[in-house]
Order: sequence, then structure tokens, then C-alpha cells
Amino acid sequence: MSDFTLPRRLVAEALGTAMLVGTVVGSGIMADKLSDDVAVSLLGNTIPTGAILVVLITMLGPISGAHFNPAVTFVFWLKRELGLAVAGAYIASQILGGICGSLTAHVMFELPVWQASTTVRTGEAQWVAEVVATFGLLASILAGIRFKAEAVPWLVGLYITAAYWFTASTSFANPAVAIARAFTDTFAGIRPVDLPGFIVAEFIGAAIALVLFTWLLKTRSETASRSAATSVR
Amino acid sequence: MSDFTLPRRLVAEALGTAMLVGTVVGSGIMADKLSDDVAVSLLGNTIPTGAILVVLITMLGPISGAHFNPAVTFVFWLKRELGLAVAGAYIASQILGGICGSLTAHVMFELPVWQASTTVRTGEAQWVAEVVATFGLLASILAGIRFKAEAVPWLVGLYITAAYWFTASTSFANPAVAIARAFTDTFAGIRPVDLPGFIVAEFIGAAIALVLFTWLLKTRSETASRSAATSVR
Amino acid sequence: MSDFTLPRRLVAEALGTAMLVGTVVGSGIMADKLSDDVAVSLLGNTIPTGAILVVLITMLGPISGAHFNPAVTFVFWLKRELGLAVAGAYIASQILGGICGSLTAHVMFELPVWQASTTVRTGEAQWVAEVVATFGLLASILAGIRFKAEAVPWLVGLYITAAYWFTASTSFANPAVAIARAFTDTFAGIRPVDLPGFIVAEFIGAAIALVLFTWLLKTRSETASRSAATSVR
Amino acid sequence: MSDFTLPRRLVAEALGTAMLVGTVVGSGIMADKLSDDVAVSLLGNTIPTGAILVVLITMLGPISGAHFNPAVTFVFWLKRELGLAVAGAYIASQILGGICGSLTAHVMFELPVWQASTTVRTGEAQWVAEVVATFGLLASILAGIRFKAEAVPWLVGLYITAAYWFTASTSFANPAVAIARAFTDTFAGIRPVDLPGFIVAEFIGAAIALVLFTWLLKTRSETASRSAATSVR
Repeated sequence: MSDFTLPRRLVAEALGTAMLVGTVVGSGIMADKLSDDVAVSLLGNTIPTGAILVVLITMLGPISGAHFNPAVTFVFWLKRELGLAVAGAYIASQILGGICGSLTAHVMFELPVWQASTTVRTGEAQWVAEVVATFGLLASILAGIRFKAEAVPWLVGLYITAAYWFTASTSFANPAVAIARAFTDTFAGIRPVDLPGFIVAEFIGAAIALVLFTWLLKTRSETASRSAATSVR
Repeated sequence: MSDFTLPRRLVAEALGTAMLVGTVVGSGIMADKLSDDVAVSLLGNTIPTGAILVVLITMLGPISGAHFNPAVTFVFWLKRELGLAVAGAYIASQILGGICGSLTAHVMFELPVWQASTTVRTGEAQWVAEVVATFGLLASILAGIRFKAEAVPWLVGLYITAAYWFTASTSFANPAVAIARAFTDTFAGIRPVDLPGFIVAEFIGAAIALVLFTWLLKTRSETASRSAATSVR
Repeated sequence: MSDFTLPRRLVAEALGTAMLVGTVVGSGIMADKLSDDVAVSLLGNTIPTGAILVVLITMLGPISGAHFNPAVTFVFWLKRELGLAVAGAYIASQILGGICGSLTAHVMFELPVWQASTTVRTGEAQWVAEVVATFGLLASILAGIRFKAEAVPWLVGLYITAAYWFTASTSFANPAVAIARAFTDTFAGIRPVDLPGFIVAEFIGAAIALVLFTWLLKTRSETASRSAATSVR
Repeated sequence: MSDFTLPRRLVAEALGTAMLVGTVVGSGIMADKLSDDVAVSLLGNTIPTGAILVVLITMLGPISGAHFNPAVTFVFWLKRELGLAVAGAYIASQILGGICGSLTAHVMFELPVWQASTTVRTGEAQWVAEVVATFGLLASILAGIRFKAEAVPWLVGLYITAAYWFTASTSFANPAVAIARAFTDTFAGIRPVDLPGFIVAEFIGAAIALVLFTWLLKTRSETASRSAATSVR
């Protein structure tokens, strides 16, 4: 049982996702407004996003685990570390928090509060990119927790810093963030109609990471003791 | 009682705020002079600011706590970790140090030493941005101290790196730095007449963070023992 | 003997090299597409590469040692930490993984999957650059392992971040990555015919680092006991 | 007595300074060649320099202390941690290593090996900047060693990252590096005739840091025991 009550954990998930989306959307608006060079804008979007992830996971991880991401919650539910009801409440909090993040960014930048994105992000290449992006994110988290738990905030922040650039989709890798980004017609937006493709791809990438890393992270002795247990039956 | 005498602590606060403001103002001048792309200039302003914060908090934190910020001192006074007289002396040192930082930057860049900013920074959107920025800063500090004190220099440096971009105000989040920035008519400046709005917003953001995180950071056992204590009465 | 079985170690080497090359090639494509300023593109190539190296070495190091680089495997074979067969299997996995990384990047960016680079990278200056780059990489690794093993992911990530800029060749410093980059006619490519010069230079740089650092890292007591051992004979 | 023999320590100082200067000069050439935006070039010069400092100090610090800087060696000599002969040998190694770094950068970039800079860097503002820059560097080192020795590589790397931007001189802060930079007529150069002003300013900044931090870093108990010792006499 967590050291913190469920309401606190849900507030942590909502607040963390709100601050994450506020950073993604807000820095996107700022960067886009200030530069004509899209690579400079993407740097101005990448560096803040990577930085805030390190901060948010360090400060809220001990409360809720700092998922901020339904694909992460889904994997921990598959690993039986969360029950179905808690996982559902986590995901609802993430989505609500994320949308608040977009709206807050609009308020800060004097834009219409409610928006719907018109940025097209669809097609097989984008979906492959999201599978890859989310696979890598979960791989970092699963291996990080296994080998060096205190480094996970850095691993996630640095992974996303890289993934913004090596994936053609700029690596959403997060269904709650994707939904929240459908609510902004700015640099970071995604057309609502393109959400299903992204979200499905993200869950697939997460599931692949879980399968591969469940095998990969098993030591000789764990494999041996399991074989022993099997042969006894 | 601190390991260090009050004069040393006040010198640490003044020196740290001076070096922080010197970096904010100096890198702003340099970046503005070298580029026509404002996003590039903001990168050249962000990266040094984030970097120096990690350095200053690590090197002066053990002496004074490395507040460099009246909003932080205010929160620690509310938490009863500083008396009123010491808190006042801290804030005075921060303001004096900050102004010295602006003046030193001017000397290094051969600009008139005494200046008053003409950069307009006002309006509800900017004030909301400062509330959000200072809320996030104090949230990082309060949760950081609670869960991973040795990471606080990094949390603050990375948080400000992000907040420069996700807030429309470029995240002053610090009344002493704001005052010092009124003394420079360069990239980082703010009109003196716009100071009150910023400063009030910053203290509000800090207070909200204190209220929310006082609740959020309470574990089950802390909540239980408090209830027990209450029911005994 | 490693805690992990050989198949897991080889998968770790292949996966890590694939993700490394995917980042190098993918971020190169993204950066090149988004900017006309080649220095901005190189920043957009450098930052992701440095970041992913920290992640990959932290997450896969405990499984395979996280070489992802035949020059590194070569040095550990010279140091007798790997047998010839395992070293060969490592190198084959790295090369296969690296090529998969290039192809995956092409799929994500909707480019022809199979390509051959036409980017000329040859000549003495480039070879000297590769000797220097690989010397520095191995120096960081050998000294890092000796003095602060947990810092090695950071040392490698930061070293490559620097070396992208201080070497005229942008620091391939890795024969498997060089081969994989011959399979892409994008920002990060290298003509297949230019591979031998690069690969030879890289192994030379690695060997020089091993010789120099074997001497440099010896303490007084190690030197003394060796002399004692010699004089007994 | 150091764990390492003097020849190893001198090689470490020469190699480290060579790699530092190679990075400063090499990344300056690369950045200048690739961009028309001087702020972008300075980013391409700053990020590698900060990164390599973390690497070099981590990997060579345990051997020689990783000064790579006569102003640092001077301060440790004043603190009686090095004798005069060793300090002199350190400084000679740093200067020789630094010059090798410039020459190696020229070879890698196919430029004339021997050059003399024509870049004017003189005047009171520049000298004030160098005093400030070197003061801050030594402050970071002295406080870092006192409070968190394992963080010193990061403190120095991050400090220089900031100081490149907040000082008008781009923060040489190092007499050996300054001398080596007089040997290159590229982005990072300095006219030989301007060296004395920079070098004197750097030693002054270092001395001020030593005086201020000797006082600032003294705890109550250290102050008390000293007073006691004095009153006994």
C-alpha cells in the first residue's frame, strides 16, 4: 500500500500531467512565436519538456509513482502493481489534468481558452513513430526501475529529449498528453480525429516493451529458479 | 541554529542573488546582441540561468539555504523556519545583491551603470503566468526538500529552464530578481511601474504552493497520528 | 560470468546500438528538414545523441556492459574481459542492430528503407579527427570505470556531445555506427567507400587510449607491488 | 602525498588542458563555420565546453586534481596544498598541453597548424569580466570542495556554461587556456598582446575568491575554536 492516500495520489497525477502539458504546449507557443526557424522552435520545446520531466518525476514520484501517462499506468496494471479501479482513476486524473494544462497555457498566452487542433498527424509512418517512441519510453522506465530507480527521472527526461527529434511524430508517447494536445491549435497540437491512431500505437509500443523487457531483465539465477520450480511440478 | 553566523548567511544571500541576476541580465545582453532570432536569444538566456542556479544553490545552500528569492524566504518564514528579523534581513540582502548584479552586468558590457527598464510587462495574462511560475518553483522546492534534498539545486535549475519557456512572462518568479531587472533597460528588463503586479502575483503563487503541498506531502501515518492526537483531546 | 545469459546480452547490444543509430540518423533527418542553419541542425543532432547515450548505457549496461561499439568491445577483449567468441558475437550484434536503426529511422520519416550514403568523409584531417574522437571516448570510459563507474553513462553522453563539435568528422568514434550510417543518404550519412579509413582510425584511437591509460591509471602502490613482484623473480 | 606519481599527474594536467582547449577551439571553428548567427555559434561553443569539463574533471581529478588552469593551481599553492616546484610543473604542463590542444584542432580542421590570433580582446570592461569570471570559477570550486566534492565536475562545467554568456569576455577564466587561444586565429582566439591584461585579471579574480571564501566557509565552531586558541595565548 502506498504511503499516500488515494486522493493525494490522484491530485499528484493530475497536477503532474497538467504541469507537463502546460510545459509542452506553453513552450511550443513561446518557441513558435519567437522564431522562424522550426528547428530552433523545436529546441525551445524540447529542452523545457525534458527539464520539467526530471523535476515532476522527482517531486511527485514518491506520492503517486509519477506516471502522468495512461500507457505507463496500463503497463503497471498489467504487472499487477495497480488494481483496475485505481488504474482507471489514475488515467481519468491524467486526462483531466492534461486538459487543464492546455487551458492554462492558453490563459497565460492570451489565447482563446477552448481550442481544437487542426494539425494533421496521421499515417503509417507517424504510427510506427509512436510505437517506437512509447516502446523506448517504457523500456527506459522498466530497465531504470530494475537497475537504478533513483535515475528514472533523468532517464525519462533525457529519453523524451532525444525522442522529440528521432521520431517523425516528435514523440507524444502518452495518450493523456495526446488528448490534451488535441485541445490546442498551436505548435504542439494534434487534430482530434487523429487521436485514435496515436493512442492505439502508444499502447502497442508500451505492450511490446513490457513483453521484451520481462524477458530481457531476467538474470541467470531468476531463470534457473523458475526452471527448478517448473521441473518440481 | 545554522552552522554559519548571520553575517555569513546574509553575504551568501547577497552574493548568490548578485550572481543569479548577473547571469540573467548579462546573458540576456549577450544573447540579444548576438542574434536576430529571439528564440535563440532566449535559449542563450535560459541555459546559463538554469546552469548557474545549480551551481549557486549547491555552493551556498549549506550556508544560508540559498533562497536568493523573497518568495522563498516568505514561505520558510510561514513554515516557522526563519524568524521575522532574519527573514527581513535575508530579503534586504537579496534585493541589494540583485541590484549589484544588474550594475555589474552593465559594467562588464560597457553600458551605462544606472538604468531604468522601459520593457512593458503587465496585464492579467502576465500575472497569471507569474502565479503559475512561482507556484511551480515553490512546489519543486517543497517536494524536493521533502523527498530528495540533495537534488534541490538540480530541481530549481531545471524548473527555471522550463519555466522561461512555458510562461508568457518568461518566469521571473522572484521579487528580488524582478526589482533588480527593473534596473536594466536590456533584454531581461521590466518597467519599474510593472513591478507591483509581478511581485504580488509571485507571493500569491508561493502561498498557494505552500497550502497545496502542506496537504499533498502528508503521508498516511502523519495524517493518522494527527487524527489520533486530535481525538485524544 | 555475467548475471545475464549470452542471448540477452546480445539482444541488449543489438537493441542499444539500434536505438543509438536510430537517434543519430532520425534526429539528423529531423534537424536537417527543419532548419537552414547547419549549426542549428547539428545542435538538434547533438543533444538527442548525448541524451540517449545516458539513457541506453544506464538501462542496458548492467546486462551487456552497454558497449554498442566494436572499438569498445575490442578494448575489453584486449583487457581479457571478453573472450574472442563473445567479442565477435557482440560486434556482429552491434552491426546488425545499427543497420536496423538506420532502416527504422527511414520508415518513421517515410524515406526509402534501403539507401547508400553519398556523403564524402575522407582525408587525413578526418582520420586524425576519428583517432582523436575515439581516443577520447575510450579514455573517458577507462578512467570512468576506474574512478566512478556509476558516472560512465553521463561521461559518455557528455563526451559525445562535446566531440560532435570539436572534431571535424563530428565524431563517429564507433565502427558499428559508421557502418550503419553508410546505409542512410541523409544528414548523418557516410559513403560506404569511406568506411575503411574511419574504422581503422577508430581502432587506432581506441588502442592508443588503452596503452596510455593502462600506464596513467596505475597508482603508486600498484607500481610498487609490481616492481616488488618483478624483483622477486 | 597523491596516490599517483608526479609524471602521471603532469601528464594528466597536460592531457586535460589539451582536451579542454581542443574542445574550446575545435567547437569554435565548427560552430563559426556552420552558422551565420553568432549566438548559435556561441551555443555550439558553450555546450561542448561545459560537457567536456564534466568529463575531464571526473576522469582526471583523482590523478592530478584536474586543475587544467594556472589560476586554480595558484590558489591551491596559496592554500599550501601544493609546493612551489609542483605548482610550477603543473602550470608548465597546462600551458604546453593547452598549446597542443590548439594545434590539434587546426590539424583536424585542415587549417595552418601555427597561427597567431588577431582577435582584439582588451579594455577595462573585458578585464572586469575576467575578474568576475575567475572569481566565480574559484568560488564554485572552493565551496564545492568544501560541501560536495563529488559535484565539482558538474559545478565547473555548469559554471563555465553560464559564464560564457554572462561575461562580456565569454569567460576565459584560465591563463593557460588564454595562452593557448592566442595560438589560434579562429572564433576562440585572443591577440597575444591582449594576454597580459586577461592573465592579470584572472589571477586577481582567483585571489579575491580565495580571500572571500576563506572567511565565508568558516562555521561557527571553527570560528569559536580559533577564538579560543587565540585567547589561550
